[in-house]
Amino acid sequence: MKPEINIVKIGGNVIDNEAALSQFLQDFASLEGAKVLIHGGGKLATRMAEQLNIPTQMHEGRRITDADTLKIVTMVYAGWINKNIVAQLQRLHCNAIGLSGADANVIPAVRRAPAPIDFGFVGDVQPEQINHTFLSTLLQQDICPVCCAITHDTQGNLLNSNADTIASSLAIALSSTYDVRLVFCFEKEGVLSNPDDERSVIPEITRSSYATLKADGIITAGMLPKIDNAFKAIDAGVQEVVIKHAKNVLQDRGTTISHPNILIS
Amino acid sequence: MKPEINIVKIGGNVIDNEAALSQFLQDFASLEGAKVLIHGGGKLATRMAEQLNIPTQMHEGRRITDADTLKIVTMVYAGWINKNIVAQLQRLHCNAIGLSGADANVIPAVRRAPAPIDFGFVGDVQPEQINHTFLSTLLQQDICPVCCAITHDTQGNLLNSNADTIASSLAIALSSTYDVRLVFCFEKEGVLSNPDDERSVIPEITRSSYATLKADGIITAGMLPKIDNAFKAIDAGVQEVVIKHAKNVLQDRGTTISHPNILIS
Repeated sequence: MKPEINIVKIGGNVIDNEAALSQFLQDFASLEGAKVLIHGGGKLATRMAEQLNIPTQMHEGRRITDADTLKIVTMVYAGWINKNIVAQLQRLHCNAIGLSGADANVIPAVRRAPAPIDFGFVGDVQPEQINHTFLSTLLQQDICPVCCAITHDTQGNLLNSNADTIASSLAIALSSTYDVRLVFCFEKEGVLSNPDDERSVIPEITRSSYATLKADGIITAGMLPKIDNAFKAIDAGVQEVVIKHAKNVLQDRGTTISHPNILIS
Repeated sequence: MKPEINIVKIGGNVIDNEAALSQFLQDFASLEGAKVLIHGGGKLATRMAEQLNIPTQMHEGRRITDADTLKIVTMVYAGWINKNIVAQLQRLHCNAIGLSGADANVIPAVRRAPAPIDFGFVGDVQPEQINHTFLSTLLQQDICPVCCAITHDTQGNLLNSNADTIASSLAIALSSTYDVRLVFCFEKEGVLSNPDDERSVIPEITRSSYATLKADGIITAGMLPKIDNAFKAIDAGVQEVVIKHAKNVLQDRGTTISHPNILIS
């Protein structure tokens, strides 16, 4: 029997709301056993860039990270947000340590090719590159890694990476030594069968029900990559992926995508 | 015989000069054995505060850290500077990990009393509070801690601390398990007998020669606290304190203050 671990990802909607973040961290701190937190950025980086007159460049909804933007996101994500989360978790007696991907070479990334679109200092992360040995050493000391989405190319350059991908890559990398529960917190109660009704949470998605939900057009475009990633994580050894509201991290709510061999139904 | 360790502190003059920092990091990376780097801030925080229209408040030459200033120094010191140093050391095959004092509770600090002057979010560090057990765990894995001067009060608040004090506190705390060589890098060749002549380095200061140098007015006011701190570290178990130029970290130059029982003279 492997030990269990919770790998929890929170996004900008939690980080931008001081009360919501405080409540989430209190809940997260009370989760028993091994755990890892991955956090996104929030609007502070955008506000900071505006105040410093650094234009935000986007391509089809995705941010282009030029040198000035890299500086801002490193300052905000790895500096202000990461260290504040760590300090708050320490207050709650959760022995957190903040990490960028450069720290102890935990998350090396590959800078994205500049063609067809040059996204700048953006790094793609692969599960097999994660330094899970060092993470396990921390976890065995009851230390909780808190990872921001800044990585590095091992050649001296910091890179901006996708926090969802970091979370699923860490989950896959740690699944060789842990029974991994990967939790994506977002601003809704879960995957909804009616996007306008927060009570319409689909409690469980199996591969066959997913096919039906897609065919019937019930799961909308924005949700598809999240669920595809969830199945990818499950296929690679993660036991369970849960998509839920950040306020429910301790509650048995949201949408669960489980490994077939632990499905009850 | 205890293993040896180099604890090296660099200040803003190195950090603000890209070429000097790059050369220093190359030298530091090639130092053999256990090592720790402590870095100060540099002018980027001041420039950033100016661009964001946050006024710099000083009292007798010392910065007052209000909430806005704390945000800036945390972003710059713990974010941009710390992660860039780590990424560069990783490129040089030095397995660095960036730490604030909040991370793994490595450096808890006590917020300075608001009277007679309220310096704001400023924390004083004591050697006996340093979490040297965790640092030793990292060092045993050939990991090099890179510490910025941001600490925490264990109650959820980040604090701005003095990098020199962090360096000497870490040195004292680690002297129970290591033979510690504490190196302060600054912009001069060492302690000079003639402040206008870089060739007038005093190679060694003993307690008795220090008394004479002070009595003769050769050591100037600005240098006294550095040397007082050096003797304090020596008294508390540090083997050797060296004050030298950052470009000479590998050279046997600068001013040495040694533990009496290892003095050759």
